Amino acid sequence: MPIYTYVSEIEKHVGEEIELKGWVYNFRSSGKIFFLQLRDGSGRVQVVYSAGNLPVDQWEKLQSIRIESSVTVHGTVKAESRATSGFELDGTSVEIINLAPDDYPIGKKEHGPEFLLDNRHLWLRSESQWAVLRLRHLVKLGLQEFFNSQGFIELDTPTFTPNSCEGTTDLFEVEYFDKKAYLTQNGQLYLEAMCMAFGRVYDLCPNFRAEKSKTRKHLTEFWSLNPEIAFINHEESLALQEKALKFVVEFVLQRAASELKILERDVTELQAFLQEPFKHYEYKDAINYLQTHGSLIKYGDDLGAEDEEILTRDSRAAVIVKNWPKTIKPFYMKTHSEDSSLVFNADVLAPRGFGEIVGGSQREDDYETLVKSLREHNLPLDIFAWYLDLRKYGSVPHCGFGIGIERVTRWIAGIHHVRETAAFPRMINRLTP
Amino acid sequence: MPIYTYVSEIEKHVGEEIELKGWVYNFRSSGKIFFLQLRDGSGRVQVVYSAGNLPVDQWEKLQSIRIESSVTVHGTVKAESRATSGFELDGTSVEIINLAPDDYPIGKKEHGPEFLLDNRHLWLRSESQWAVLRLRHLVKLGLQEFFNSQGFIELDTPTFTPNSCEGTTDLFEVEYFDKKAYLTQNGQLYLEAMCMAFGRVYDLCPNFRAEKSKTRKHLTEFWSLNPEIAFINHEESLALQEKALKFVVEFVLQRAASELKILERDVTELQAFLQEPFKHYEYKDAINYLQTHGSLIKYGDDLGAEDEEILTRDSRAAVIVKNWPKTIKPFYMKTHSEDSSLVFNADVLAPRGFGEIVGGSQREDDYETLVKSLREHNLPLDIFAWYLDLRKYGSVPHCGFGIGIERVTRWIAGIHHVRETAAFPRMINRLTP
Repeated sequence: MPIYTYVSEIEKHVGEEIELKGWVYNFRSSGKIFFLQLRDGSGRVQVVYSAGNLPVDQWEKLQSIRIESSVTVHGTVKAESRATSGFELDGTSVEIINLAPDDYPIGKKEHGPEFLLDNRHLWLRSESQWAVLRLRHLVKLGLQEFFNSQGFIELDTPTFTPNSCEGTTDLFEVEYFDKKAYLTQNGQLYLEAMCMAFGRVYDLCPNFRAEKSKTRKHLTEFWSLNPEIAFINHEESLALQEKALKFVVEFVLQRAASELKILERDVTELQAFLQEPFKHYEYKDAINYLQTHGSLIKYGDDLGAEDEEILTRDSRAAVIVKNWPKTIKPFYMKTHSEDSSLVFNADVLAPRGFGEIVGGSQREDDYETLVKSLREHNLPLDIFAWYLDLRKYGSVPHCGFGIGIERVTRWIAGIHHVRETAAFPRMINRLTP
Repeated sequence: MPIYTYVSEIEKHVGEEIELKGWVYNFRSSGKIFFLQLRDGSGRVQVVYSAGNLPVDQWEKLQSIRIESSVTVHGTVKAESRATSGFELDGTSVEIINLAPDDYPIGKKEHGPEFLLDNRHLWLRSESQWAVLRLRHLVKLGLQEFFNSQGFIELDTPTFTPNSCEGTTDLFEVEYFDKKAYLTQNGQLYLEAMCMAFGRVYDLCPNFRAEKSKTRKHLTEFWSLNPEIAFINHEESLALQEKALKFVVEFVLQRAASELKILERDVTELQAFLQEPFKHYEYKDAINYLQTHGSLIKYGDDLGAEDEEILTRDSRAAVIVKNWPKTIKPFYMKTHSEDSSLVFNADVLAPRGFGEIVGGSQREDDYETLVKSLREHNLPLDIFAWYLDLRKYGSVPHCGFGIGIERVTRWIAGIHHVRETAAFPRMINRLTP
């Protein structure tokens, strides 16, 4: 009996007869030779059958195979330089587990995005979607490895919250028994409490935003990894962000050459990113730059998608825009030590117009200043009493930031719309399948 | 300037002067000697100051220190066999970053659980809670490492679902723009779709259950890791579950000796677990056993907490109860090949009464049988059309199971109530802080 293995492992079995189980993603016949293209979830490989080498009943069944049928194949692994994987199988047997009907909805013709999303459960099987989601896996894993190696521990912030850290617009509301709860937009306030107990923590979980906007950068449900670190200042936090992003890009480059090739990603851009120090703009300098490069932005405005594009389109490095006006930022950001109209915060923009991928700040650690800030934002002190306790009992300088998993994946994959980076994306008009 | 490091790293600096930043969790003075007990999130260490070796102003400030103040200390690391960590610091300087008031709410006296949960943001700093949540981190990480090493990839199932896989009772409902959505109880159906694209997948995410029951095993929001595997059968899945659980216990034992000691966990129980093959009961045999050991359970009943206790109290091995009556199980479980009144499913019960930690099944992969089962459960076929597609296009035998993160953590930590295994637990009567 040949050994059962996976396409991803075939290089270990050159010259051996192996068993693979998977799905037929394509096939063609040329007389006495039958080419069966198999995917098993770990990769893709071609199995070549000759009429003479296969029992007659199997050869006949092969003639009526259809796309997305499931099969068990046996074959001998041989190196084949013309194959993408570098290998193919000399087929010795084939068994059809389940013969698919001939109406598989996703064909070679172009489909519109709504059709593909309606068939997301099948679209996932196509090569490009397979590649993007494997990159997503590596992005999460690489970031976890980075922060774990730095002594961080992963903890979970709650999804159900009694209130929000950035106001209640854009929040999803839930009936929580006899109360109202909101789905978390970000676990930051909880991470700050954990940070005082564990020093260096992060969460990695879904966040929720009931945003009405339909853009190619927004999902209602998205994942982020949020580190929170005690005893570091704003610039140290920015250095850590640079290190983390470079680590994950290198992590992916080392493990996903074939996925990046499938997606036709220009890897020289990613390689260059590793070499280039991040560019730092003070917010006010970014505004000046934008105004002299065609943007109508005014001091005190948030950056629009076009502004992010202008700042990064010619850059192979990430671009940091830091130290924004306090008036447009949430209550918890630390006042800048040299200009009290600013806060110690920053957004990190991916190169080449891929937009914001990280946002963070130093947190206000002074009790009185935080109370004042809550009042200025018309936020109720009683609800934030527990959060104020963190400034009362052993307050320390601390910073945190959020890394958007879908946004980083979109950038590394080099794809247009963030929806392809989630297995089952959720948007304002999309809740199925 | 001494090197800034963490308590977890001090063994690398014996004989060196180092800098630590952290919080005072205790202190005592004996005349000319001051013992400052420091925690920095990575661990705990005692710093010993002598009046003669410290500048007078620092010595005086030290006399008025209070619990949970934040400090920067310098000191020389020395081995100290009487210390839990094996080391202590000969203090050379101390700087108070933030002097806490003297009303820190959590003292040495016993507090009730509601008081502690109201102060969860501070309770996290206590040694036992720190230890439990570090175990939680290792449980998640160990399980990820196990499945990643087996070629699995982690993907995310959606939190927002238009319908539920096990009925709509116990579901949290959300206003999703102009629609209703439900918070996922389990991503299984989505994982099955992913499984046909990626072969071996898992998710690791929060699940939600609006259960009215108040027990020490239930949270409204809980995390689970759910593998779904193509081309394996029920018994192979059970073997994988055993391997995964043994891997994670060994992973924790190797990394968390001090956390387990803090929790006074009998590690010989965990070591024995590694050696003992899981005990397998057919459901019907479990019922017989229970009836002869004092339970009033009848064939066709679910196992109660007491039944789980009876089955496992004398066991150092996990106990599997498998192949339950179809009538009490969800529509998607595969009919047993030798008894059509049963399904191929199983619960894994932790040793010594710690209850269910894993539940899983082989999935029905036959299209017609699944349609029949949906009808028998009065479920609408149109909503499950996409799920049925998975049986139409290349159906394959596949299995999956869910590992409860809080439940596994509770068992490994050896603690009574599951609420301590979540940083900010959510229960029917608990939504804050």
